[in-house]
Amino acid sequence: CTPGEGILERLDAGEIVIGDGGFVFALEKRGYVKAGPWTPEAAAEHPEAVRQLHREFLRAGANVMQTFTFYASDDKLENRGNKLTFTGAQINEAACDLAREVANEGDALVAGGVSQTPSYLSCKSEAEVKAIFKKQLDVFIKKNVDFLIAEYFEHVEEAVWAVEVLKETGKPVAASLCIGPEGDMHGVSPAECAVKLVKAGAQIVGVNCHFDPMTCVKAVKMMKEGVEKAGLKAHYMVQPLAYHTPDCSCQGFIDLPEFPFGLEPRILTRWDMHKYAREAYNAGIHFIGGCCGFEPYHIRAVAEELALERGFLPAASEKHGNWGAGLEMHTKPWYTCLFVCFRARRDYWENLKPASGRPTCPSMSVPDGWGVTKGHADLMQQKEATSQDQLKQLFDRSKSH
Amino acid sequence: CTPGEGILERLDAGEIVIGDGGFVFALEKRGYVKAGPWTPEAAAEHPEAVRQLHREFLRAGANVMQTFTFYASDDKLENRGNKLTFTGAQINEAACDLAREVANEGDALVAGGVSQTPSYLSCKSEAEVKAIFKKQLDVFIKKNVDFLIAEYFEHVEEAVWAVEVLKETGKPVAASLCIGPEGDMHGVSPAECAVKLVKAGAQIVGVNCHFDPMTCVKAVKMMKEGVEKAGLKAHYMVQPLAYHTPDCSCQGFIDLPEFPFGLEPRILTRWDMHKYAREAYNAGIHFIGGCCGFEPYHIRAVAEELALERGFLPAASEKHGNWGAGLEMHTKPWYTCLFVCFRARRDYWENLKPASGRPTCPSMSVPDGWGVTKGHADLMQQKEATSQDQLKQLFDRSKSH
Amino acid sequence: CTPGEGILERLDAGEIVIGDGGFVFALEKRGYVKAGPWTPEAAAEHPEAVRQLHREFLRAGANVMQTFTFYASDDKLENRGNKLTFTGAQINEAACDLAREVANEGDALVAGGVSQTPSYLSCKSEAEVKAIFKKQLDVFIKKNVDFLIAEYFEHVEEAVWAVEVLKETGKPVAASLCIGPEGDMHGVSPAECAVKLVKAGAQIVGVNCHFDPMTCVKAVKMMKEGVEKAGLKAHYMVQPLAYHTPDCSCQGFIDLPEFPFGLEPRILTRWDMHKYAREAYNAGIHFIGGCCGFEPYHIRAVAEELALERGFLPAASEKHGNWGAGLEMHTKPWYTCLFVCFRARRDYWENLKPASGRPTCPSMSVPDGWGVTKGHADLMQQKEATSQDQLKQLFDRSKSH
Amino acid sequence: CTPGEGILERLDAGEIVIGDGGFVFALEKRGYVKAGPWTPEAAAEHPEAVRQLHREFLRAGANVMQTFTFYASDDKLENRGNKLTFTGAQINEAACDLAREVANEGDALVAGGVSQTPSYLSCKSEAEVKAIFKKQLDVFIKKNVDFLIAEYFEHVEEAVWAVEVLKETGKPVAASLCIGPEGDMHGVSPAECAVKLVKAGAQIVGVNCHFDPMTCVKAVKMMKEGVEKAGLKAHYMVQPLAYHTPDCSCQGFIDLPEFPFGLEPRILTRWDMHKYAREAYNAGIHFIGGCCGFEPYHIRAVAEELALERGFLPAASEKHGNWGAGLEMHTKPWYTCLFVCFRARRDYWENLKPASGRPTCPSMSVPDGWGVTKGHADLMQQKEATSQDQLKQLFDRSKSH
Repeated sequence: CTPGEGILERLDAGEIVIGDGGFVFALEKRGYVKAGPWTPEAAAEHPEAVRQLHREFLRAGANVMQTFTFYASDDKLENRGNKLTFTGAQINEAACDLAREVANEGDALVAGGVSQTPSYLSCKSEAEVKAIFKKQLDVFIKKNVDFLIAEYFEHVEEAVWAVEVLKETGKPVAASLCIGPEGDMHGVSPAECAVKLVKAGAQIVGVNCHFDPMTCVKAVKMMKEGVEKAGLKAHYMVQPLAYHTPDCSCQGFIDLPEFPFGLEPRILTRWDMHKYAREAYNAGIHFIGGCCGFEPYHIRAVAEELALERGFLPAASEKHGNWGAGLEMHTKPWYTCLFVCFRARRDYWENLKPASGRPTCPSMSVPDGWGVTKGHADLMQQKEATSQDQLKQLFDRSKSH
Repeated sequence: CTPGEGILERLDAGEIVIGDGGFVFALEKRGYVKAGPWTPEAAAEHPEAVRQLHREFLRAGANVMQTFTFYASDDKLENRGNKLTFTGAQINEAACDLAREVANEGDALVAGGVSQTPSYLSCKSEAEVKAIFKKQLDVFIKKNVDFLIAEYFEHVEEAVWAVEVLKETGKPVAASLCIGPEGDMHGVSPAECAVKLVKAGAQIVGVNCHFDPMTCVKAVKMMKEGVEKAGLKAHYMVQPLAYHTPDCSCQGFIDLPEFPFGLEPRILTRWDMHKYAREAYNAGIHFIGGCCGFEPYHIRAVAEELALERGFLPAASEKHGNWGAGLEMHTKPWYTCLFVCFRARRDYWENLKPASGRPTCPSMSVPDGWGVTKGHADLMQQKEATSQDQLKQLFDRSKSH
Repeated sequence: CTPGEGILERLDAGEIVIGDGGFVFALEKRGYVKAGPWTPEAAAEHPEAVRQLHREFLRAGANVMQTFTFYASDDKLENRGNKLTFTGAQINEAACDLAREVANEGDALVAGGVSQTPSYLSCKSEAEVKAIFKKQLDVFIKKNVDFLIAEYFEHVEEAVWAVEVLKETGKPVAASLCIGPEGDMHGVSPAECAVKLVKAGAQIVGVNCHFDPMTCVKAVKMMKEGVEKAGLKAHYMVQPLAYHTPDCSCQGFIDLPEFPFGLEPRILTRWDMHKYAREAYNAGIHFIGGCCGFEPYHIRAVAEELALERGFLPAASEKHGNWGAGLEMHTKPWYTCLFVCFRARRDYWENLKPASGRPTCPSMSVPDGWGVTKGHADLMQQKEATSQDQLKQLFDRSKSH
Repeated sequence: CTPGEGILERLDAGEIVIGDGGFVFALEKRGYVKAGPWTPEAAAEHPEAVRQLHREFLRAGANVMQTFTFYASDDKLENRGNKLTFTGAQINEAACDLAREVANEGDALVAGGVSQTPSYLSCKSEAEVKAIFKKQLDVFIKKNVDFLIAEYFEHVEEAVWAVEVLKETGKPVAASLCIGPEGDMHGVSPAECAVKLVKAGAQIVGVNCHFDPMTCVKAVKMMKEGVEKAGLKAHYMVQPLAYHTPDCSCQGFIDLPEFPFGLEPRILTRWDMHKYAREAYNAGIHFIGGCCGFEPYHIRAVAEELALERGFLPAASEKHGNWGAGLEMHTKPWYTCLFVCFRARRDYWENLKPASGRPTCPSMSVPDGWGVTKGHADLMQQKEATSQDQLKQLFDRSKSH
């Protein structure tokens, strides 16, 4: 890949672009993001922690540093319980600076990101929602990010609005929905969603979050088929969870009983990531990254799987033997024998069926999402009527149980 | 707790001392430590990464910053495949500086750590092994660490040698074996091990690594009973794995088929850590930390469980609702209903049986350790005869398969 | 129900008709049927064993005694390895006599059954295949069975041929395919299959074998919708496996790695059967029975679930407390306390998640059927060309591996 | 083996004696025994069902027909809720007749069996308890059984009393406790139990019921070591459950949440039985049979595993291919390929890890026995004081919850 080239030039040239992993989950475990609000004030409060995570993803092979601006729209920041020391603009600016600083340490692009807004969910008008995006965008332009991503949208309608706003800047625009093969929250299929986004001006489309890698790849394949069938052209991206979610219903992992504090047994291994990277690449998806649950070693596994295609290994591979080769260095000689013969091998790890060590736990959960999803659908149907007041009543009622 | 006081004063006063988590596993996932050699050259090569991890554990509530000097003895560092840019002394010094820098940002003590050596395993003499420890110790004295820990010893004999060397400094000495209730690799029981260590001069004894929290607490309880029965006195420490290991044989998780690259499904949740912290505290163990697999949020859970006893919450709890309380801040109103009513509650998370999302995987593995353990025992019996040359032959033979 | 009435009168009157369970699997476990050939020579060889099983199903509540003539067509009997002491006619006659003898001990009807033939699978002509059915039918007419069932057909085409032959007798005809919601082996949907069968003259249509109860009920519902959409009328039957098969591909349990000698962990409990019976009844299916894996207590559970609708309990309920009520009679008084308070209750058993006691086993298998199914499809496409000789070559080739 | 020879002659000559399986569980599933009372009135009420089960075990290879007289002591029969049509003597006589009739169809011995009594549990005197056994014994003598078994005793004290009564007849006496490696309900070890029983006159000792095969074999090994250490001599027997019970506490499967109506996922396969038979034989146990959960095909598997040692296959093996060989006869040619190449093979079935098909269920249960066991121990301590009246109070109290 050629330093200095933009995202579209890279993808047009057939390069593989590797994304980073999800910041909110990784930083929640490190103590800098609060589960529930999931807001990114750490960019301003604890820049050293955010900078370090950027660096780890860069070392792991990421070509894109997404600004840590998830849920950093003003309406969302105001909505969270705690008072913030920093303004929305300060948080967004700090995030841009950190992403740029680390991107310049390697060959990475900076992507400014917007995500779905509480304003849309509480039925504000198109103009109001677009104004929210515009405010974040002003910071991205001032800080001169390399391209823009509208990501984590459950409703294609809101994503289209976001793309329309982002397009005005003239920067390349990517759009990523948090949906699976069943489509968005109104039941719009992945194929149709993709067509809408491309028509709105997105040059890259795909999905992120909510489902495991194989499910997300499947959804993006459906998008690709839709776009091609419509005679349109686009690049494709995928940034899934690092959690196994075979038992998810349509809203993905949020409906799982384990969300968000009991997901550990579902975490993908690095070897699962090899399979994911290959599958995505074979599907014609060339922007391949991660979302919630991804740690730097997961991104490194993606980069290692595609090292031949890319022509190089990531920096962090200096600390990783190919398919377990480092195990040859084990301290104890007899373990060396064991590990060299049996474990420092691709087939060992590819075929391993890892045990949970939890014999009183099931392998699959029954998502509690049905009721929620149904309630959601009902609410959506009465979209106009549903005011914040009504929701408050609902909330108060449930709280009194 | 009183700033400036030493480890023994704190424990004597009945304070709970919280340890940090395991650095080699955490930094392996972040891209700075290589699985296999497991050596800590990152202290000199990538100080920003090590400093950041120290800081996260400090924020999470740790009172002890262990120098990142695991496997940093010269014989071990030489043994690893890659050439190192830094000498053993440089690595040990850098590790001391990082631990001290971060410890001073809060109320933490610096503990210089030594661990088992390849020299002992290849049957070097007591004098030779002690000389190895002495070299690391010289750095710890020069850097004036607050106390010393001999940890991750599988053979109580070597641990006793280490304690004898460490004692010469006059600093408080802790000794921690990586054993379970079945005792050390020669079958010496936890009770007997503890008595030997206390007699050698250790003021704090316990276990770390190799087994899951409940198993480690059980082993330390056996140590405590042994020490008390012998009419001796000591403080107790425990720093277990963050992996469920109900299916381990006597060498712990190293024998599991999932070691070290497929352990994800076994990772403990934060709620498992609450149970662990309570169990350890109830057992009279007051130095409570973690080893491989522990991330900052695991240590924070320990600190939160014991917040009432300690009188304060850790800094990182600003980003963590008590028992899931942060979930009340969820963006979508209907989810707020769901989460407030059902999930922002202690009983929900305490009773959750998290699913693995891996229906084709078992819950328990058959450890492949039997052969290894047996081979190990055989080798140990011929300790005198087994030269490095013989082991090399064994290794070469296995490599040729 | 009115003794003496036929199957159609009963169903027309809205009665629930309970079928029996699968004889080949039950008698394989008892030592009278060989897995592989699965032929019913026991009817002639060991009549006492077959009679006893009929009796147990009658006691359990079955209204239908199916003649034990599964795979008793001449082409199938000749095909099996061992020499048979009895002719096909003798076996079919003995089976009719046993069914009638026991049916007369209660209020049950005798159903003569034919199933798919090797002749069809080896591409014999319609005339040849129909001649095979005709031979069995001659016995059924001579023995004056009450109605006829064409069951265990994977190809609706062959089932239609069977129905056409059976219709000539003037007896009521039921037709049951061993398919799931994905349809028959040529991909004909359940709805379309049902329409074809009804048009061919079947008065009762449904599915049996190959899938678990809930999957089978789902397939029959699709049949019902198809028939109703086509403006036709029929009664519906379902006789599923007593094995959980969530992981089955289109050929059902035959593709599972556990087929046929490792299916034990999948066996349904009696409480699973309650749910099945209710679900089938609610779906408008009134002929409810079982196939492979069903033991008499499974049929009794169906009869107990529907006791209120039928107006009576089966004879064998004299030996069964309602929802575990018999446990009150436990010998040891303190167990009585435990059991009466906790286990002699519907909610205890309905909510129980039974453990497998097999912690090194997965919960789901990867069916090995893909290749087979694909091979099957390939073979079917070249139906005309595929001679027995060619299959023999295929067989020899695979044997030489 | 030599027809006409007694049990001791056979065992002395080194023959393998194969027992039958458990009648109460098998007949419960067939509709003739009620769970809870578990009494054998079917011997008189439905002799054809009992006769048929005897025959199936005989065909499967059993050399011993145990009279179906489990819990047929008068105090137990009176205790059950329903009125019985038959007297205790009639039931015991009918059971003897059926066992003898079928034994004479092959080369089998008839064993008269007594089991633990409610009288002992309600603290009746030694004389009273012995009188209970004596009554059953009178029938066995009148019917001239070949030998006697005292089985299913949880308290070695009561078993010793039983042996003392049985010895008076001069017939060979076997004694079998329903205990595991932890010993009887008073904590008497298997070794000590066995010594007591041999000293009381039992020529054969062992265990039955309550635990899975491997656990039972382990307990009998401990018995054997105890007997040999004491300088005594005996033969050994084992008749375990056909359920996997790795998660059982000291009272065995009765404490499992799945007892008795949800045990299906735990049922052993025939291949598990091969391992059991080999393990038992290798341990020097020559009387090998089964208890609850055993169906005829389980006993056949025992007989097939030991066919070489015994010199012949059981009759029912005419309907069973060696290690799945019958699968070669599968109808569909392509399946034949699959099955012959992959499944009609010992290694396939030996290595299969059968899936449960129940992804929302755990692999292990938490037995609810702790409380029960504790309550039991408490009750036992106050043995003298605890009258039936007191127990009734306890029962009434629990019922009112």
